[in-house]
Amino acid sequence: MELGLTYGLRRAARLRPYSPAVIDGALTLTWAEFASRVARLAGAFCALGVRKGDRVALLAMNSHRSLECYFAALHAGGVITPINHRLSAGEILAQIEDAEPAILVADRAFETVAIAAQAGGSTPALICCDGPSPSGFLLDYEGIIADSAPIEDSERRGDDLACLFYTGGTTGAPKGVMLSHANIMANTVNFLSHIGTDEDLVHLHCGPLFHVAAGVRLFSVTQAAGLHVVLPRFSAAEAIATIERNSVTIATFVPTMLRALLDLPDIGAAGLPSLRIITYGAAPMPEALLREAMRRLPHVRFIQSYGMTETSPIATMLGWRDHLADDQRNNRLRSAGKPALLAEIAIADQTGMHLPTGGTGEILVRGPMVMLGYWRKPEATQEALRDGWMRTGDVGYLDAEGYLYVVDRLKDVIISGGENVHSQEVENVIASHPAVHQCAVFGRPDPRWGEAVHAVVVPRPGACVSAADIVAHCKASIAGFKCPRSVEIRAEPLPVSGTNKVLKAKLREALLQAETA
Amino acid sequence: MELGLTYGLRRAARLRPYSPAVIDGALTLTWAEFASRVARLAGAFCALGVRKGDRVALLAMNSHRSLECYFAALHAGGVITPINHRLSAGEILAQIEDAEPAILVADRAFETVAIAAQAGGSTPALICCDGPSPSGFLLDYEGIIADSAPIEDSERRGDDLACLFYTGGTTGAPKGVMLSHANIMANTVNFLSHIGTDEDLVHLHCGPLFHVAAGVRLFSVTQAAGLHVVLPRFSAAEAIATIERNSVTIATFVPTMLRALLDLPDIGAAGLPSLRIITYGAAPMPEALLREAMRRLPHVRFIQSYGMTETSPIATMLGWRDHLADDQRNNRLRSAGKPALLAEIAIADQTGMHLPTGGTGEILVRGPMVMLGYWRKPEATQEALRDGWMRTGDVGYLDAEGYLYVVDRLKDVIISGGENVHSQEVENVIASHPAVHQCAVFGRPDPRWGEAVHAVVVPRPGACVSAADIVAHCKASIAGFKCPRSVEIRAEPLPVSGTNKVLKAKLREALLQAETA
Repeated sequence: MELGLTYGLRRAARLRPYSPAVIDGALTLTWAEFASRVARLAGAFCALGVRKGDRVALLAMNSHRSLECYFAALHAGGVITPINHRLSAGEILAQIEDAEPAILVADRAFETVAIAAQAGGSTPALICCDGPSPSGFLLDYEGIIADSAPIEDSERRGDDLACLFYTGGTTGAPKGVMLSHANIMANTVNFLSHIGTDEDLVHLHCGPLFHVAAGVRLFSVTQAAGLHVVLPRFSAAEAIATIERNSVTIATFVPTMLRALLDLPDIGAAGLPSLRIITYGAAPMPEALLREAMRRLPHVRFIQSYGMTETSPIATMLGWRDHLADDQRNNRLRSAGKPALLAEIAIADQTGMHLPTGGTGEILVRGPMVMLGYWRKPEATQEALRDGWMRTGDVGYLDAEGYLYVVDRLKDVIISGGENVHSQEVENVIASHPAVHQCAVFGRPDPRWGEAVHAVVVPRPGACVSAADIVAHCKASIAGFKCPRSVEIRAEPLPVSGTNKVLKAKLREALLQAETA
Repeated sequence: MELGLTYGLRRAARLRPYSPAVIDGALTLTWAEFASRVARLAGAFCALGVRKGDRVALLAMNSHRSLECYFAALHAGGVITPINHRLSAGEILAQIEDAEPAILVADRAFETVAIAAQAGGSTPALICCDGPSPSGFLLDYEGIIADSAPIEDSERRGDDLACLFYTGGTTGAPKGVMLSHANIMANTVNFLSHIGTDEDLVHLHCGPLFHVAAGVRLFSVTQAAGLHVVLPRFSAAEAIATIERNSVTIATFVPTMLRALLDLPDIGAAGLPSLRIITYGAAPMPEALLREAMRRLPHVRFIQSYGMTETSPIATMLGWRDHLADDQRNNRLRSAGKPALLAEIAIADQTGMHLPTGGTGEILVRGPMVMLGYWRKPEATQEALRDGWMRTGDVGYLDAEGYLYVVDRLKDVIISGGENVHSQEVENVIASHPAVHQCAVFGRPDPRWGEAVHAVVVPRPGACVSAADIVAHCKASIAGFKCPRSVEIRAEPLPVSGTNKVLKAKLREALLQAETA
């Protein structure tokens, strides 16, 4: 008997009907109330035309409604596809066009883009998530819940598609990662078997739920019948107040969030006594930041996870005992940890051959958490998956005790504040400026964002372009978080390799030397 | 992608090829060695005729070979059926006849019964587990491993049958419980998600591996790539020496074993510092014994599990924090805990209607850990399973926080030293004695065995029978552990209800009053 992702909700509603399930600001929903709203919203989705496998797109800030949409889409037999609202309108429309959802649920703030998506023909039905639609074109979320009868759970499971998460691509074309019920259930097992379920979970969701790690955590916490505490967006002060008010026991932060928390003057005094676990990941954690956090929150267990959207996402975990066992010999704090319960890790050379222990090469991940494939992209899927092994594009090695160390990223990706930025996508945009002759985009270390997008630009002979011109040009077509935070305009040509590839490592090195000089 | 039970072995062999997998006395096998022996033993099983779904019966004391047989049977595509060697020869033969195994692997001590099984026609191939066969009729275990080439894993999974565990029946007819790969994988998830896998497991197997709880624990520890430490049989002194010698971190004891451990004079001094978890179950734990154990081993986390063979077996778990939170208000130490991660619990009245919280009735269990059914017994299966709910035959209630309290057993079962004894089976045997007019068998509280089998016998008018006669009569046809440890011969007829049912509760009460008087 395979289990679907709605099983946890059915179980929690039976186990704890009158206990709180979701706290969102002043609103508290019990498991019975939450399950009832989900079953009625699923009824509305079906009435609006959702059939098995149809997509329900979500373009909204975090709220209890995000959770309801996740579960209602699956309950109705559909697929949830959450969209990054930080993207530009053009990027959002490209994702919606690719996903072809039957329904788009959007906040009022995104009404214009929702109407544009419907006009483009890719989305028949629109629902306004957070109150009456200003234009009146969108259906009212609370109205359709009130008017709908609950329907039976479709009980989709196993290899049935559950979620479509978009990752950036080098060309800017959206790439949907297809995760099945079994994929995400495997992630739940990987996560919960690591942390143990002996303690009740009160989980703070303050990272954007359109990202895989935050999104699928909804299913893990629900399976354990834990309590969801939702913040619309991350703010350090709000996070601390919410942790204290609701006795939150577990939260996930990317390095940028953790930095902001520690920068608040009162965190030391408050101490966050209820908090027992902080999980972190999604970006390389600066070691100094981690050590400071461990020192200032000594009662908190820090747990790292490493993975990617394509692995649902957890592939390895570094446990809290490993954090404490760190020493000069093992350098555990620099490790991404050991394979998750249901995961296998291998290291391959450039020909795909698996290397023995200690060998450095591309990190491969295998197991039931590896995606079904890329949505409508069979070639990209074939390129990424070999004999069930997912090619991460990261470079690393395994030590004799089975710990993974990530040493570099094969794919040219900058991770800034937890968001992936493909250098090539930004380079393509900059190169489209008429005054630009050559450019290179890479990450520079940044205490707040982990990495910040940096561009080096060589103008065409005789042309003149400023850093501000380059940034404005980018902002016109791609998301703000992808735009360079710093631009160097230089006269001399970029250094290239024998095969005429720009030597970014050399540029990065020169930048670091100039900064520390 | 569904996972089979051999996945954990493949994963462990990749992750930790040169780390110890099994310690059995002076012998240590690495994961690579263990996996290689399993693949070759599976090759031998196939050469001897095992096809998909065929049974491999195991009649042996615990050893590294028990582990190998479990995994090799599944690797070969077959089904492992471990047999309780404490049963009488007749009972063992009845189980083998019912299971119709293609192969029987037996210790030399059980050679006679193995040969009888083959003569009966139900077992084509015999393998001698622990050295050369005295008679020469059985194949040599080490010889066939040495002579066989390894084969590829069959990778059976999901609803494929994995294990056939026999439970006693009221009539003495064997009843095989069919557990699938998915059933036992769900148990692994239930177990590991409760205890967490952040710490490496070094697991002592000292209970008989033919019982479901000990048997399926092999798969859980393997999935976590933990280390198996095997004792041929339980002895308190050996258990303590082995825990100390191998730095065992986790062990499972039934109450009888725990009593024996605490009765050793040196346990307090030794302290068993490596031991971090004791799981217990399979029989009601006397509260005084548990409190003493918690007091004398304060660094050990005690975890209770409740369930039955038909639920693979874990249905609920009482965590170590719950043990410490026990007080007069909640009586947590008397609870069987909360539903396991993938389990649902309901309470039903006599008509099968589910009762609200607090109502007392039959305990039902639902989830992916519930058996496929009874082997070749569709009526018994239909009787036990209703809409996916397993009827446990136990009576209990759920409190408002979701904790289960077991108050009585509907089925007339005595649990003595971790073994289930069906009263009716023993009554049938006693009633077949020519001098017996009436009899009743029930459990009496026993500090060592938890419960001890007690019989009350009324002789036929004019006939004369002694307690010793009754015990000897039982020993001739059923296992020693089922035979009465005490017999009361009484002249007056047994008290009966209006429907002529013997009132055992009245007899038990009278016995307790007489003993405490």
